[in-house]
Amino acid sequence: MPRNAFYAQSGGVTAVINASAAGVIETARKHRKHIGKVYAGRHGILGALTEELIDTGKESPAAIRALKNTPGGAFGSARYKLKSIEKNRREYERLVEVFKAHDIGYFFLNGGNDSADTCLKVSQISQALGYPLTAVHVPKTVDNDLPITDCCPGFGSVAKYVAVSMMEAGLDVESMAKTSTKVFIMEVMGRHAGWITAAMGLAQTKPGIAPHLLLFPEIPFDEEAFLAAVKKNVEQYGYCAVGVSEGVHDKDGKFLAESGLKDAFGHSQLGGVAPRIAELVRGKLGLKHHWAVADYLQRAARHIASKTDLDQAYACGKAAVEFAVKGHSGVMPTIVRTSSKPYRWKIGMAPLTEIANVEKKMPRDFITPDGFHITAKCRAYLAPLIAGEAYPPYEGGLPKYARLKNVAVKKKTKTDFAL
Amino acid sequence: MPRNAFYAQSGGVTAVINASAAGVIETARKHRKHIGKVYAGRHGILGALTEELIDTGKESPAAIRALKNTPGGAFGSARYKLKSIEKNRREYERLVEVFKAHDIGYFFLNGGNDSADTCLKVSQISQALGYPLTAVHVPKTVDNDLPITDCCPGFGSVAKYVAVSMMEAGLDVESMAKTSTKVFIMEVMGRHAGWITAAMGLAQTKPGIAPHLLLFPEIPFDEEAFLAAVKKNVEQYGYCAVGVSEGVHDKDGKFLAESGLKDAFGHSQLGGVAPRIAELVRGKLGLKHHWAVADYLQRAARHIASKTDLDQAYACGKAAVEFAVKGHSGVMPTIVRTSSKPYRWKIGMAPLTEIANVEKKMPRDFITPDGFHITAKCRAYLAPLIAGEAYPPYEGGLPKYARLKNVAVKKKTKTDFAL
Repeated sequence: MPRNAFYAQSGGVTAVINASAAGVIETARKHRKHIGKVYAGRHGILGALTEELIDTGKESPAAIRALKNTPGGAFGSARYKLKSIEKNRREYERLVEVFKAHDIGYFFLNGGNDSADTCLKVSQISQALGYPLTAVHVPKTVDNDLPITDCCPGFGSVAKYVAVSMMEAGLDVESMAKTSTKVFIMEVMGRHAGWITAAMGLAQTKPGIAPHLLLFPEIPFDEEAFLAAVKKNVEQYGYCAVGVSEGVHDKDGKFLAESGLKDAFGHSQLGGVAPRIAELVRGKLGLKHHWAVADYLQRAARHIASKTDLDQAYACGKAAVEFAVKGHSGVMPTIVRTSSKPYRWKIGMAPLTEIANVEKKMPRDFITPDGFHITAKCRAYLAPLIAGEAYPPYEGGLPKYARLKNVAVKKKTKTDFAL
Repeated sequence: MPRNAFYAQSGGVTAVINASAAGVIETARKHRKHIGKVYAGRHGILGALTEELIDTGKESPAAIRALKNTPGGAFGSARYKLKSIEKNRREYERLVEVFKAHDIGYFFLNGGNDSADTCLKVSQISQALGYPLTAVHVPKTVDNDLPITDCCPGFGSVAKYVAVSMMEAGLDVESMAKTSTKVFIMEVMGRHAGWITAAMGLAQTKPGIAPHLLLFPEIPFDEEAFLAAVKKNVEQYGYCAVGVSEGVHDKDGKFLAESGLKDAFGHSQLGGVAPRIAELVRGKLGLKHHWAVADYLQRAARHIASKTDLDQAYACGKAAVEFAVKGHSGVMPTIVRTSSKPYRWKIGMAPLTEIANVEKKMPRDFITPDGFHITAKCRAYLAPLIAGEAYPPYEGGLPKYARLKNVAVKKKTKTDFAL
């Protein structure tokens, strides 16, 4: 007898997380012998706790296919981390109550480090609470910081976006520098790991062009060395383009984004390391500057998604279902790089015990000795991940992004659950 | 006997200003009877004053064609406004000296309001200094604020970029709002005119989705009304996406971007109205926020250029040459909209006396009565301008943008000119 599946999006969404959803749903539809319905959690895992389930069976094949072209989280995502079963048994019992009511035997969580931890804990329900459940994690994070897997679905598209944006803005600044902006600063995501910052480096396809300097969270910010490098680049090339991670901090671990800016009421101003760096450049070097903060634009930019990333996101969703129907639980599909030139990859499998809560930072040999750029080794790693274009369809000048019906499944439990 | 032409890029560059350059150069190459060489000014008009000319004849047809795919200013642009001939006769005499030395009989300046003024003044050299010169302005400005022309080359592509970006970021925020960011703020260019801000409004293809609110420079900022509107949208839709012009100011004309933020040294922090609005939302409403500042990314985004805009940019460059060889001087090609549905346009001609220094702001009936969004009339105006995609070629995941050889023309004047 087939059992139903639960799928939830978790943590920050990406340009291709919906492609993983499509991979899960389309593949489940091919395994009717094992999987009945696929219920998606409204607002991620919260949907399981509150019994707000979405019946993906109400969506047409075309609608599910269109998810591949649509950024954001089509069912809603959530930042919500389950505590351990010892600390919050109530939540796990509630999950079992809801799963039992809807005969859910498969659990797919589509997220990053924290979500892998949640998925691992849910996979342990079987033993701990005696409820038979197969739980597989589907990797997703723009931060690219999951271990074991060569890269993470979501990252390649952000990487492509920031590299293209830096290349374009660089051409702009370069052509204006004679009489206008000398220093341009672009801030990107990645609080603890510098992968996205590194990807901006791909735009520098020859010496002297943007970006000239990169500021990684892995390298403590050295104000003096940075200002000297800016000055040198402006003297040599007429301008200096800087890519900076939101997570850049000083040697004491203090985030630059939190250092010193106050609003009119004297409150510390949160966020925005780019304006902080810009202020420094203006104050100490007296150079005209401009700055950009890409924020959500970078991780939602489906219009410039990487084809490689899109394919991998879909493949991970597909593999998760295939693992599950074969009885694997507490695992995650990984991307295995079998060759860099030409780039080849395949799907592997890793136990969540080795994934959960482990953060993969940039290796030191991916960063140049001076700490301000990426090495050839890093380029060789990154380049294939942004390869290929996969444009969404357009209508009247705008992308035609899918909006699902998201039909609610009738509640079966008698109880409300307070989060 | 053919005479040579001088072409210069002026003011802020765009995603398609090089397409206008291609239009000028390719069309000039078809009029060998009238036009000999096309010299481009290195760093715009400065190149004429310093006699730093680039021989575009050294570039292959393929290289010139590739300009259509390349953002930024391929020859360098400059922010430099000529004073009147009465006030700075020296500059005009220098122009004549350089033009005479290189037998330049045609002058093309590719820019916005200020540049139109410069072009007009140069067109008057003929009478004032007795040097025969045909001067035609090629319109370009992301701000879309030139009069007479229906729209300005450069604007359609920024408009498409900001509409797509807002749509994508909106999907992101919408899917996360339950447990994360409630208010998202995206800042765009347009210090005096709200056209770019208005274009973000195109992303709202149905009620309740992003952007919920737009803040125009044409509408004095009303803090109370704004905060009430944010609150209402968050209550009704779960989140609120705000598009804001860098030029938003209060009723006394004071820019919000300049109001109140101080750095660690107590200096006023320049720029960034988005963080200022974000701070307001956090302080007064206690809502979690995120903000983005697109800055140069928006006007350099050739990867998502509007096909309509690209075609018009090229057509204006082409028309400028055609006007010039017919003997028209002191004029500018305009875009004439002959039909909105279906959208049809043709090239017109306007005298620079009616263009120079006139700024076209948003008509009040393009903005809703409450001042927070665009009207149907505005949508009908904007929609065709972002229509069509015109992707650049890619190589290894990155756009293949042209880099010209920019071969210098040997100097012929004996004098150096101090700017």
